[in-house]
Amino acid sequence: MKTIALKSGCEVPSVGLGLWKIDPSETAQVVCSAIECGYRHFDAASDYGNEAEAGDGFHKAIADGSIRREDLWITSKLWNTYHRPEHVRPALERSLSDLKLDYLDLYLMHFPIALAFVPFEERYPPGWLADPNSQAAKMQPDRVPLIDTWQAMVDLVGAGLVREIGVCNFGVSLLRDLMNASATPPAMLQVELHPYLTQDKLVRFCRESEIAVTGFSPLGAQSYFSLNMADAEEAVIEQPAIREIALRHHRSAAQIVLRWGVQRGTAIVPKTTKIDRLKENLSLFDFELSGEEMSVIDRLNQNRRFNDPGDFGEAAFHTFFPIYE
Amino acid sequence: MKTIALKSGCEVPSVGLGLWKIDPSETAQVVCSAIECGYRHFDAASDYGNEAEAGDGFHKAIADGSIRREDLWITSKLWNTYHRPEHVRPALERSLSDLKLDYLDLYLMHFPIALAFVPFEERYPPGWLADPNSQAAKMQPDRVPLIDTWQAMVDLVGAGLVREIGVCNFGVSLLRDLMNASATPPAMLQVELHPYLTQDKLVRFCRESEIAVTGFSPLGAQSYFSLNMADAEEAVIEQPAIREIALRHHRSAAQIVLRWGVQRGTAIVPKTTKIDRLKENLSLFDFELSGEEMSVIDRLNQNRRFNDPGDFGEAAFHTFFPIYE
Repeated sequence: MKTIALKSGCEVPSVGLGLWKIDPSETAQVVCSAIECGYRHFDAASDYGNEAEAGDGFHKAIADGSIRREDLWITSKLWNTYHRPEHVRPALERSLSDLKLDYLDLYLMHFPIALAFVPFEERYPPGWLADPNSQAAKMQPDRVPLIDTWQAMVDLVGAGLVREIGVCNFGVSLLRDLMNASATPPAMLQVELHPYLTQDKLVRFCRESEIAVTGFSPLGAQSYFSLNMADAEEAVIEQPAIREIALRHHRSAAQIVLRWGVQRGTAIVPKTTKIDRLKENLSLFDFELSGEEMSVIDRLNQNRRFNDPGDFGEAAFHTFFPIYE
Repeated sequence: MKTIALKSGCEVPSVGLGLWKIDPSETAQVVCSAIECGYRHFDAASDYGNEAEAGDGFHKAIADGSIRREDLWITSKLWNTYHRPEHVRPALERSLSDLKLDYLDLYLMHFPIALAFVPFEERYPPGWLADPNSQAAKMQPDRVPLIDTWQAMVDLVGAGLVREIGVCNFGVSLLRDLMNASATPPAMLQVELHPYLTQDKLVRFCRESEIAVTGFSPLGAQSYFSLNMADAEEAVIEQPAIREIALRHHRSAAQIVLRWGVQRGTAIVPKTTKIDRLKENLSLFDFELSGEEMSVIDRLNQNRRFNDPGDFGEAAFHTFFPIYE
């Protein structure tokens, strides 16, 4: 399996299993199956609501000798409600405890959004809404500068609880300002990336800044159909250009799109719960797209972002909360 | 003349004269003519290279009794090379001295970009390049957090040197982080705004955050033809939809586009040096666009940004410096 290098020299497997939207009842089994299929990189988050079950899977696979902890790359993410510096370490410790781990390989700030604190005993994971059972439930922003949250994350590295730290859903100006304000730059940026949202300038900026990049929703609309956040005709894998390349390589359209993601130097974290798909999504390293094929896919870009709190915030949470404008 | 209100209650005339690209040899005369035509709002900047000449115009008009200082709204901007806190006040004082004023109405951070300091005696205004006469001249970034520059600007208000402060070319996430980090929110955001770049979410975010908005390049491509940064077919004022509305109102296409700008609640700072155009650009308050006409213009949006250091930085300055991605 290919890897991408962080600035520190750490190597991250190019393909990870994304745990977003995997039902808790399936998560432990999917984690074990994925390890058996050869997955070594797992992308978790407090907000996904399945860290305890993922932890059951890691624990089982390590306990039965299928894998060693040090051969896994496990990422988790700090949720928006824990941005105050005093909440950062408890939030990480809750994730570690759920995941049954004593350290994370990578801890990411999930969004450049600080929301009002919700104690664990009140609700966990707390989600986007301050008062989810009220009719007028809204997001409740909290005034915490990103640099304060970041410096608390830097302390987690010093404490030996996480190996690397990074951010998600930041643009170039937020990244640059963070790097100007902190002696510790982010090792990783995780953002939405697929052929309809190639973000070439952001990816290039990160390459030039020695920030590795992970793309979430690497198949584009596929992640959003079940949430009614994409239309059927927005499926990247139905694009004639993709299907033609797939036929040429005797691969699935999904494999072509995922291969494009890893071949451009990003890590990807596709989600699936099916054994066949787990294997398919990992089988990207015995073929190569030509420069021309890469360019054909690059040109599918439509700047189409499916995961944008400036859109779903208002629709789902009665809160207009743009972050990318 | 209509005005827009700042959070403090200050009123800013909706139409100002933008001084960008006015030749120094013409600037004093244009300022005097504009005052005579009824302009009360002037948009200057250290970087425009004509503040001393604009100051000659202000001085003359005030000295000869054409206008009182307190009836003018004068904006200037902190250049990128003066982001270090210790350079902020000297930079403002240089602008004040050139403009022959003892206070500014509004001082804006020109870009969310900190570049290496260039002393006044070495070069003024210093422009984008660290070493402009070298073959390999490049932009030279400096690591200054935006909040540090901002807090130095806050001090200018305290010192009575500027009435209001704000920023240019920030997006929502930079604005939010600045407001989370400082007790003093920006009174104004100045960004590129025209029918091909309507930035609806950004404008709405500012309205909800009580940040007034000024649009620069309100006619779109017109500002960029002379810089070879726009193609002839990108002229907003040639759009059939605009021309049709212009015919209906017996106005010029430019007046329709400018009226759309002020009617959506933003200030605008169109530039011209011609008396007829000065008058034309100010004659926007004796007619009104219908809701349907406003929507027709809104729908011309193409997210087309002409002024983007992520593009011109590389072409003109050998430096890839995206800020909007």
